[in-house]
Amino acid sequence: VNLISSKASIGKNVKFGSFVIVHDNVTIGDDSVVESYCELGYSNGREKGPLHIGANAHVRSHSILYLGCSIGAGLVTGHHAVIRENSRIGKGFQLGSSSISMGELEVGDFVKTGSQVEIGQYSRVGSYVWIFINSMLCNDPRPPSDEVRGPDVDDFAIIGAGCTVFAGVRIGKDALVGGGSVLSVDVPDGQVAIGNPSKIVGPVSSIKMSDGTPAYPWRYRFHRGYPKDVVERWLREAEAMKRTSS
Amino acid sequence: VNLISSKASIGKNVKFGSFVIVHDNVTIGDDSVVESYCELGYSNGREKGPLHIGANAHVRSHSILYLGCSIGAGLVTGHHAVIRENSRIGKGFQLGSSSISMGELEVGDFVKTGSQVEIGQYSRVGSYVWIFINSMLCNDPRPPSDEVRGPDVDDFAIIGAGCTVFAGVRIGKDALVGGGSVLSVDVPDGQVAIGNPSKIVGPVSSIKMSDGTPAYPWRYRFHRGYPKDVVERWLREAEAMKRTSS
Amino acid sequence: VNLISSKASIGKNVKFGSFVIVHDNVTIGDDSVVESYCELGYSNGREKGPLHIGANAHVRSHSILYLGCSIGAGLVTGHHAVIRENSRIGKGFQLGSSSISMGELEVGDFVKTGSQVEIGQYSRVGSYVWIFINSMLCNDPRPPSDEVRGPDVDDFAIIGAGCTVFAGVRIGKDALVGGGSVLSVDVPDGQVAIGNPSKIVGPVSSIKMSDGTPAYPWRYRFHRGYPKDVVERWLREAEAMKRTSS
Repeated sequence: VNLISSKASIGKNVKFGSFVIVHDNVTIGDDSVVESYCELGYSNGREKGPLHIGANAHVRSHSILYLGCSIGAGLVTGHHAVIRENSRIGKGFQLGSSSISMGELEVGDFVKTGSQVEIGQYSRVGSYVWIFINSMLCNDPRPPSDEVRGPDVDDFAIIGAGCTVFAGVRIGKDALVGGGSVLSVDVPDGQVAIGNPSKIVGPVSSIKMSDGTPAYPWRYRFHRGYPKDVVERWLREAEAMKRTSS
Repeated sequence: VNLISSKASIGKNVKFGSFVIVHDNVTIGDDSVVESYCELGYSNGREKGPLHIGANAHVRSHSILYLGCSIGAGLVTGHHAVIRENSRIGKGFQLGSSSISMGELEVGDFVKTGSQVEIGQYSRVGSYVWIFINSMLCNDPRPPSDEVRGPDVDDFAIIGAGCTVFAGVRIGKDALVGGGSVLSVDVPDGQVAIGNPSKIVGPVSSIKMSDGTPAYPWRYRFHRGYPKDVVERWLREAEAMKRTSS
Repeated sequence: VNLISSKASIGKNVKFGSFVIVHDNVTIGDDSVVESYCELGYSNGREKGPLHIGANAHVRSHSILYLGCSIGAGLVTGHHAVIRENSRIGKGFQLGSSSISMGELEVGDFVKTGSQVEIGQYSRVGSYVWIFINSMLCNDPRPPSDEVRGPDVDDFAIIGAGCTVFAGVRIGKDALVGGGSVLSVDVPDGQVAIGNPSKIVGPVSSIKMSDGTPAYPWRYRFHRGYPKDVVERWLREAEAMKRTSS
């Protein structure tokens, strides 16, 4: 019992669940899965173009994707996820269950979030960023206002669970925001911020795995779910790093 | 494919999405939109009356509205929103995506919330109040218990993102609760509370916009989405204020 | 308009809403209710067995239950709830609206959660535990990693609203984690933790109800929703306690 618009462009080998709605002006890439109770191509009247979903997408049940978005290959959403209008989203985006991408934003490649996350409007999120459960990127320093400004999160940054990231804050490359933080200050590259209000407490290099090896940058040790060529680049980088430091 | 009860009273020019359920004893005002996968008139057996939705409502997809509620004109919900039983809700209520109004509560006119908000049972929320993303109003000081008491939020108050407001707390008129606060104390009219645990840190008048003008009370500068007569009243009030202070 | 697999085993007197999907390898106990837009027996390919739901279940609308779970009698979910794969869940589990049980976990009997809660993978939750709105149990101390370890929450513990519980933390029997806490330390039996970062501040016995009687252990005073034999055991225990202390 699906309602797929004849004006939608559906790739090869796309599988639909039941009770799915696909509106006009939606493109779905090859080998994608759109589960039950999803609505693709939702319009709130503010969209500036069609919805383009790359190949190999997996949209879990009860999710809603708006018009005006360009989403790279390999999208994965949890259940009850929402991706709002006018966003440019890279490859391999994973948005957790009940998480919301509020629209008018930019997300790089291989960004992954936990559940119940909110990426506020006008956020800029780099590539290979992690945002864990129940964290949010805010955008209004003096709410309510029209002087909104999203946070700017650089590549490989990690935002722990339950964090409130204030409007306009910059989180540097390889930086780590500890769980439960309320972040109102910028975090320099490779530094750790934690607390409410958050303070910078030192470099990520001070954090070790249980065997004593460095935990960060995480890309030197954690590779699950990333493409082979990307992982090889990370391993070469790690090797070069080791040679330099020894 | 909608299931609309013949015992529901549907106004003129009401538009339905698909896979919509409307139960008995539901009234929907003229010119409303009820999107796909919504269920209106849900019963948990505790409702004390029908569900009345005023004119010009816009209920976004996957939302659930319970019996026992009277909701003024201009309701807007996000996706996956829930409004539970026995609540008296004013005009212009906006409830964000994945937000929950837990029932047995009172909400004034033009109250607006972000996503993932929870308004706990027995809360009393005045008019023109803002509750931003992921904030919650709690109601049980010694959980679990039957000695529950909702917070009391006065007109024009602002609760920032990611706040936990404890049971029975009073937030005064024009008061501001900063993002990420855990609020266990009352906030006097026009004061700012922030932190975990929150402290009162001064008057809202100390906060300025980027051009140096006062940011609060916000109604003197922010008018988007409010009726013309309301905005004119605010502007007259602002003018009178200026004359008094000069 | 329901899609119920002929390979599902449906008990006596089970009621379905509309637009319900029940996949293969699902058992639903007698006298259960499965509301509209629910999907039971969802597969993400990682399940290690069927989905078994005990008698008297009440699954509220828009919820998703995965294969690989064994759930005791008396399950109640809110709306938009998700219970993921390979979990052993006891009797009387109540999971709030928009809450997520992330899978690969163990939950005892009569565990109750508020809305927007997340129980992380590999968590171990005892019996008669309360987890209030918007709280989460995390599992990765150095995210992202494969060295994950869920929290361990003992019987009768209470986790207040808006708490972030770090990976591997142990919360003792009868312990209380105050609202808004960011918990990175273990909480001994019967102790109270609060704050960000949380500290142990004393025994639960110091907290009183409004009439001056002890608030905790809560099972000596709060009985709504528990079986008669369980409540009688609690009352006998309370009586014995009183005799000992006098």
